[in-house]
Amino acid sequence: MDYQQIIEDIYKSIQPHAKEGKQATYIPELAKVDPDQFGMCIHTIYGETAAIEKADTRFSIQSISKVFSLAMCLSLKGDELWKRIGKEPSGTAFNSLVQLEIERGIPRNPFLNSGAIVMADILLSELTNPEEEFLSFVRAVSGNDSIEYNREVAASERENGYLNAAIVNLLKYNNNIENNIESVLQFYFLMCSIEMSCRELSQAFLAFANHRRKFDYAGITLTASQVKRINAIMQTCGFYDEAGEFSYLVGLPGKSGVGGGIVAIYPLLYSVAVWSPRLNAKGNSVMGLKALELFTSETKESIF
Amino acid sequence: MDYQQIIEDIYKSIQPHAKEGKQATYIPELAKVDPDQFGMCIHTIYGETAAIEKADTRFSIQSISKVFSLAMCLSLKGDELWKRIGKEPSGTAFNSLVQLEIERGIPRNPFLNSGAIVMADILLSELTNPEEEFLSFVRAVSGNDSIEYNREVAASERENGYLNAAIVNLLKYNNNIENNIESVLQFYFLMCSIEMSCRELSQAFLAFANHRRKFDYAGITLTASQVKRINAIMQTCGFYDEAGEFSYLVGLPGKSGVGGGIVAIYPLLYSVAVWSPRLNAKGNSVMGLKALELFTSETKESIF
Amino acid sequence: MDYQQIIEDIYKSIQPHAKEGKQATYIPELAKVDPDQFGMCIHTIYGETAAIEKADTRFSIQSISKVFSLAMCLSLKGDELWKRIGKEPSGTAFNSLVQLEIERGIPRNPFLNSGAIVMADILLSELTNPEEEFLSFVRAVSGNDSIEYNREVAASERENGYLNAAIVNLLKYNNNIENNIESVLQFYFLMCSIEMSCRELSQAFLAFANHRRKFDYAGITLTASQVKRINAIMQTCGFYDEAGEFSYLVGLPGKSGVGGGIVAIYPLLYSVAVWSPRLNAKGNSVMGLKALELFTSETKESIF
Amino acid sequence: MDYQQIIEDIYKSIQPHAKEGKQATYIPELAKVDPDQFGMCIHTIYGETAAIEKADTRFSIQSISKVFSLAMCLSLKGDELWKRIGKEPSGTAFNSLVQLEIERGIPRNPFLNSGAIVMADILLSELTNPEEEFLSFVRAVSGNDSIEYNREVAASERENGYLNAAIVNLLKYNNNIENNIESVLQFYFLMCSIEMSCRELSQAFLAFANHRRKFDYAGITLTASQVKRINAIMQTCGFYDEAGEFSYLVGLPGKSGVGGGIVAIYPLLYSVAVWSPRLNAKGNSVMGLKALELFTSETKESIF
Repeated sequence: MDYQQIIEDIYKSIQPHAKEGKQATYIPELAKVDPDQFGMCIHTIYGETAAIEKADTRFSIQSISKVFSLAMCLSLKGDELWKRIGKEPSGTAFNSLVQLEIERGIPRNPFLNSGAIVMADILLSELTNPEEEFLSFVRAVSGNDSIEYNREVAASERENGYLNAAIVNLLKYNNNIENNIESVLQFYFLMCSIEMSCRELSQAFLAFANHRRKFDYAGITLTASQVKRINAIMQTCGFYDEAGEFSYLVGLPGKSGVGGGIVAIYPLLYSVAVWSPRLNAKGNSVMGLKALELFTSETKESIF
Repeated sequence: MDYQQIIEDIYKSIQPHAKEGKQATYIPELAKVDPDQFGMCIHTIYGETAAIEKADTRFSIQSISKVFSLAMCLSLKGDELWKRIGKEPSGTAFNSLVQLEIERGIPRNPFLNSGAIVMADILLSELTNPEEEFLSFVRAVSGNDSIEYNREVAASERENGYLNAAIVNLLKYNNNIENNIESVLQFYFLMCSIEMSCRELSQAFLAFANHRRKFDYAGITLTASQVKRINAIMQTCGFYDEAGEFSYLVGLPGKSGVGGGIVAIYPLLYSVAVWSPRLNAKGNSVMGLKALELFTSETKESIF
Repeated sequence: MDYQQIIEDIYKSIQPHAKEGKQATYIPELAKVDPDQFGMCIHTIYGETAAIEKADTRFSIQSISKVFSLAMCLSLKGDELWKRIGKEPSGTAFNSLVQLEIERGIPRNPFLNSGAIVMADILLSELTNPEEEFLSFVRAVSGNDSIEYNREVAASERENGYLNAAIVNLLKYNNNIENNIESVLQFYFLMCSIEMSCRELSQAFLAFANHRRKFDYAGITLTASQVKRINAIMQTCGFYDEAGEFSYLVGLPGKSGVGGGIVAIYPLLYSVAVWSPRLNAKGNSVMGLKALELFTSETKESIF
Repeated sequence: MDYQQIIEDIYKSIQPHAKEGKQATYIPELAKVDPDQFGMCIHTIYGETAAIEKADTRFSIQSISKVFSLAMCLSLKGDELWKRIGKEPSGTAFNSLVQLEIERGIPRNPFLNSGAIVMADILLSELTNPEEEFLSFVRAVSGNDSIEYNREVAASERENGYLNAAIVNLLKYNNNIENNIESVLQFYFLMCSIEMSCRELSQAFLAFANHRRKFDYAGITLTASQVKRINAIMQTCGFYDEAGEFSYLVGLPGKSGVGGGIVAIYPLLYSVAVWSPRLNAKGNSVMGLKALELFTSETKESIF
């Protein structure tokens, strides 16, 4: 399979959609990014790599960071984690409070904002130096020590983060937050602010794709079974209210972020990351979705 | 892989759960079934078969029939189908009206009762002899001409089917039902009343597992891509409000029914059916779930 | 107080709104009514009367009939009634199923469609000849033996009544309907189909306004306390999702119907009925609301 | 009417309920109050007064303060106010976020926590010295210059006020808060912390009962029509999810608070305040409700 040729062809064929959608603008830092960029990178478990365009440009990974949080929380807490968070798809927008109120402060899954905020709280409780240890893990799993938080982005998101502030207060009211609210919010936004390129993301997610290899990075260890379960949650909950659509069109476990990044994996075969800032109405990258849909169609490699 | 030995071992090890859960009793016919039965059967795409216990006893497949409906509708309507039904997981119980009202009569996915009722309506509109043609398709895909509806079960369900009657009226109010309400309800319940054994179900679902083989049964044809998409919907929506849990524990696309049956597939490898009438609180077979969880753990074969 | 002069003046001053809103058209019979009609009539407990325009033209009273149902049910069942229906305002549209599902089949109040459907069921259970006895009561309380059901309207509403059919099925599913669903629906629509003029409605509601006089009509008796409580429910629940607005602008207990009628009372002083078919978005008569708002402003007579 | 005798008799006859319900304990200061206290006071517009038991003991008026806020906001903004708050009953608990999310940040009425928080924001924007001016108004309308905030109660509520913090963040997210979130919350809790006795509350609410007298206190003026409209809102929304029940049993406009106080008015006749800390499940004083129900039954004076 000539992945380099395939993704170059895909890039050409999706050009008609290049101006569809709008980049996220709710914080000035995200609004400043040139919306007309595109990058894509693939790593196979056999060591092959292919990359095009801005595959080495870093962007704000935002919600993709929730997969790293989940890996750490599952490593630290095991199945205890599921006492505080569910693992069902939500059927509502990623930032809805309705379901959270009805279900008394137990987020439906770890990839909703509410779920990730509970994970931030868990990490604050479990780790000695949460900021450093989270970053160390991300650096280790992606094999790149230059990855950094963007503290301006985090601060800017905190400043305008009224909805997430509502969520954390509702969680606290329901006794599902142990730490100080402000600390939890700041750590949550900080994790979201990590900047990575498609190449780095693809490399990092190879650890999830290749669950036959030992998962052990910066002290965070997971069994093969745990890795597979993280992949299962990506499949059912990774795309907010569009998880079914992604599963239908692409057929791979994955996770998206409002920075325009999407990462997906084919277990025991490859991981792929794509980035383009223009988003559809559900908050997922337009060009990213198109590229991945074509990619699994072309390669005829989907898990179904 | 000695599947026969594996499922025999599994059957022994799940015995401690044999009395957990309760069979469905909302219609007399389902309540009459001996709850302490168990059957399991597997077919691989290479022609291997393994079966234990009551693998040849027929039971009411109930919601598993929705997969057959979806196959027919997708064959008949193509992607037009998605104008009348969504493909997102629901986040609510399979029979909830709330989401349906809020989303103005477009069921979230084809495996909710509301979605399957819309599919019944589509089949009534598209087919000349809906009852016969649906049965012919099920017989053809399972390679067994003796499969039948159970008209007593269907009539009994119709008589007590107030919630489904509420649903079809709400759909009609929202202009998402073309035919007479009573006809739609009766056809819906008739499709659910089909009786099949684990062996027959497993055989039938091999057609979904093996999408490299042409899907063409009694005139119903699907492309490989369409079959894979049906599998994707089974993955995200096949277990009502427990789809995430099933995905997490078992890691296969599948579909359950209140008769106690569950069928799951490993694409390009096998299909497996299990049956035991005692259900958990979410309406899925207790022993069936346990057996499948162990099965994918033992074989280390899950799609993630 | 020269009521005749007041309502004539009001009629003139509301002319600019004469073409606002649209009449109900969901059944052909209601759509056939000339929308540009207006009638108004007032009766005081001292025997005064004033009437203008089409005060003697009969129209479909629709939901106003729910007050008569409530009077009968409260007379027949006393406070037992409240085991099957609540008395709180709903905060949602009159025909919503959401709250009904969440609150497990107990309608929030008797003036929602769901509440009135439960009342229809109660009357079917309690009365020997429900149709005759309901009509006899309405005739007796309005002092007019020529009042009739309009069976064409009732039949037409039944035919298109998918939403109410959804509601009655959901109620039955929750064990809050005793009788056959079809009988309940037909009786419900029949009660709504009664035709009365403003003069007749105003006369009938004088019985609720004047709770110092014995309430005893065609064998239906209520204590003064019970009459006052019916009035209280009209105040909080009489105008669907616009009860607060009506209370704020008009300040009287009352009840509206989609036929364009509104009746309101000033306890121990008067009752007033107004009719004009054009409705606002909430389903209440535009000219009727304007006329009543001006009426209480002009007379400075509101209960607050 | 010998009001003194009537309320003394009522107090005796409600003794069997003296131990029902539980006082609010979510903040230490409220939990410290002796729960077995009872006070009641009535003022008529003709200058009569009657009072029993702890009628002169001050307690935390809590949500009753929302009526004072509404008076100020309506005086300052007129009908502009209704662009930011509705006036419909809610059909959900006083602190629910669900409806607020669905209705995009416009609270259903001013007596929900969300509505009162928006009013706090309005007062912060409109007034030069909000804390002083609010207190001055309350003192003026009750004719008592010794009324004070309890800053310990306010601080303690702020500390534990996660749900209200969630609400104000959700409002801000929906652009319905102009000021700094922390300032709004602190001012909201401060207003709730005012301490008054039954005698003082009854005196203050006489201004709402007697709308024939000019409403002008500390510069806050309202027309008779505006006062009546405040009364109408108390009728439909004054008792959270029990407004219908209160209207049904008592039949007067009123407002309750979790401190155990209830105040009600009979327009152009009297105002009455009652206090007893034990609350029912809906958050209203058990003995207070009983006393008021008997009071309107005994005097046969209700607005219906």
